[in-house]
Amino acid sequence: MHPLVHRVITGDKRALARALTLIENDEAERRALLEGFYPYSGRAMVVGMTGSPGAGKSTLVDQVIALVRSKGLSVGVVAVDPSSPFTGGALLGDRVRMLRHSTDAGVYIRSVGSRGSLGGLGQATRDMLYALEAYGCDVILLETVGVGQSELDVMTVADTVVLVLTPGAGDAIQTAKAGIMEIADVFVVNKSELPGADALVRELQLMLHDKRSFREDWKNPIIRTNAVHGDGIADLWLAVEQHHRHMEEGGHLLARRRQRHREEALRLVEAAFARYLSERAEQDADWRRALLDNLADNPYQTAEKILEDLPWIRLRSGNDSVL
Amino acid sequence: MHPLVHRVITGDKRALARALTLIENDEAERRALLEGFYPYSGRAMVVGMTGSPGAGKSTLVDQVIALVRSKGLSVGVVAVDPSSPFTGGALLGDRVRMLRHSTDAGVYIRSVGSRGSLGGLGQATRDMLYALEAYGCDVILLETVGVGQSELDVMTVADTVVLVLTPGAGDAIQTAKAGIMEIADVFVVNKSELPGADALVRELQLMLHDKRSFREDWKNPIIRTNAVHGDGIADLWLAVEQHHRHMEEGGHLLARRRQRHREEALRLVEAAFARYLSERAEQDADWRRALLDNLADNPYQTAEKILEDLPWIRLRSGNDSVL
Repeated sequence: MHPLVHRVITGDKRALARALTLIENDEAERRALLEGFYPYSGRAMVVGMTGSPGAGKSTLVDQVIALVRSKGLSVGVVAVDPSSPFTGGALLGDRVRMLRHSTDAGVYIRSVGSRGSLGGLGQATRDMLYALEAYGCDVILLETVGVGQSELDVMTVADTVVLVLTPGAGDAIQTAKAGIMEIADVFVVNKSELPGADALVRELQLMLHDKRSFREDWKNPIIRTNAVHGDGIADLWLAVEQHHRHMEEGGHLLARRRQRHREEALRLVEAAFARYLSERAEQDADWRRALLDNLADNPYQTAEKILEDLPWIRLRSGNDSVL
Repeated sequence: MHPLVHRVITGDKRALARALTLIENDEAERRALLEGFYPYSGRAMVVGMTGSPGAGKSTLVDQVIALVRSKGLSVGVVAVDPSSPFTGGALLGDRVRMLRHSTDAGVYIRSVGSRGSLGGLGQATRDMLYALEAYGCDVILLETVGVGQSELDVMTVADTVVLVLTPGAGDAIQTAKAGIMEIADVFVVNKSELPGADALVRELQLMLHDKRSFREDWKNPIIRTNAVHGDGIADLWLAVEQHHRHMEEGGHLLARRRQRHREEALRLVEAAFARYLSERAEQDADWRRALLDNLADNPYQTAEKILEDLPWIRLRSGNDSVL
């Protein structure tokens, strides 16, 4: 058992900070930590909050922290900023506001940059949740900026995904293209005092009306908020709680967690295979000749030759080639 | 042989457009096309042009097209925009300017969005180069927006990487963090009439002076341009040609191409393994029990159990575990 595990479980905040840094950057330590934290997982409510830059997510997260704390629940926040290089755990820009909670023992806030995270941003963030759950967080808020593939990857671990939109700026249409509309469970129209808020709500209603099927039989609510004034935060949290109950009662939460477990295990096996492959490509003289020196073969031909040396890779469908 | 291959090789522009679309989206057709195009590869000069949005890359590319054409060389352009969803080959925003070349039979311009590209943006873009080379392009310009991981991946196929910076906006410092500084062969200070251009040039000179070793023994030139007025374009192209000659003479070009060939083949083998793995995970009842139903195991334990069933994955270093 990694020595930090016991300290994190017993609520040592500095040990948690250290563990998160190791999980982000140190492959050797990560495994021991995750194995220690794993038995404590599956207890927290994980809420993802995403949307375009400027939508007011950080202010909203700040308000949600206050609300969750007022219910006596502890909260962990992971704020992901893929556009930024290493943050080393520092908070960026707007998120500094959240620091007012940092003296509260029931709140832990962590910022994650994209570059240099071991296994990529999605993997690092997912693994950090295990630490926060073991630390005892009742609620984990996962904030991401933007709508790229990294954000979609990150959101696969959330029990509930909240998409924050604002009036104007063609937000709804832009994000719809990016695929986040499909995975959002709760829609928020923030800055709802701005002109265009009604139009955005109607646009969302129409879009939802046209939806043929709802993921996990959940009808997405649309919540109006004004994060700066704290309006609508209670409604938002109620919608999140309702979604969570819906997921639990329908067995969907367990299904999502099984899916996550399966994918994490398969990614580890794939990574082990990739290491085996590149190590053998370095060391195997026959492979080097076929791989490196033979530009006359196209990459498919080269891959075929390698696969002939790895005859256990055969799909059951009985194709001659697995490429 | 795929029927489009012959048409592309004989200079049929519509066949090229169709082939590029298939390469981007259709796995079954992609392989046949690439195998047909592969023998014609390795002839074009591939120049990557990258930098932050607003640096003036598209205008610069437009000017370079004109210069290259004036030398009687044919040119293909792949403009990558990872922040944008499907473009379906349409040109975006600033790049519309380039359309003035579209009636020139010696120019082919293609825009690539990020989402939905088969095998990811990097793979789709790399594979498109094979088609453009087979079509007979003497020069291929690869334009990317931004400085994320996708751009770095894309740039691994370029013989020469041009990084376009502008005065002000902390450009130099920002991109330095993103790792593109390390792979840039030629630096361009565009909009060099703006205040701050001298400071940026000095900043770059200092940074290069501090560099302990230069990749492939190449001392990176810094070129001032004003793309809108066409100033410095000839100098830029001269620097690109000098770099290309340096790479050829030192054997570096062959080394980069071998590296690319090797990586493409290994990625194909990894993809074949990933397919084998998920198909077996679907079909193997024992695996399903271990993978899906057993949340009591952490993902590492699950991965270990799978690897016990795949005993051929053993690193030669003799570790007990390959995870």
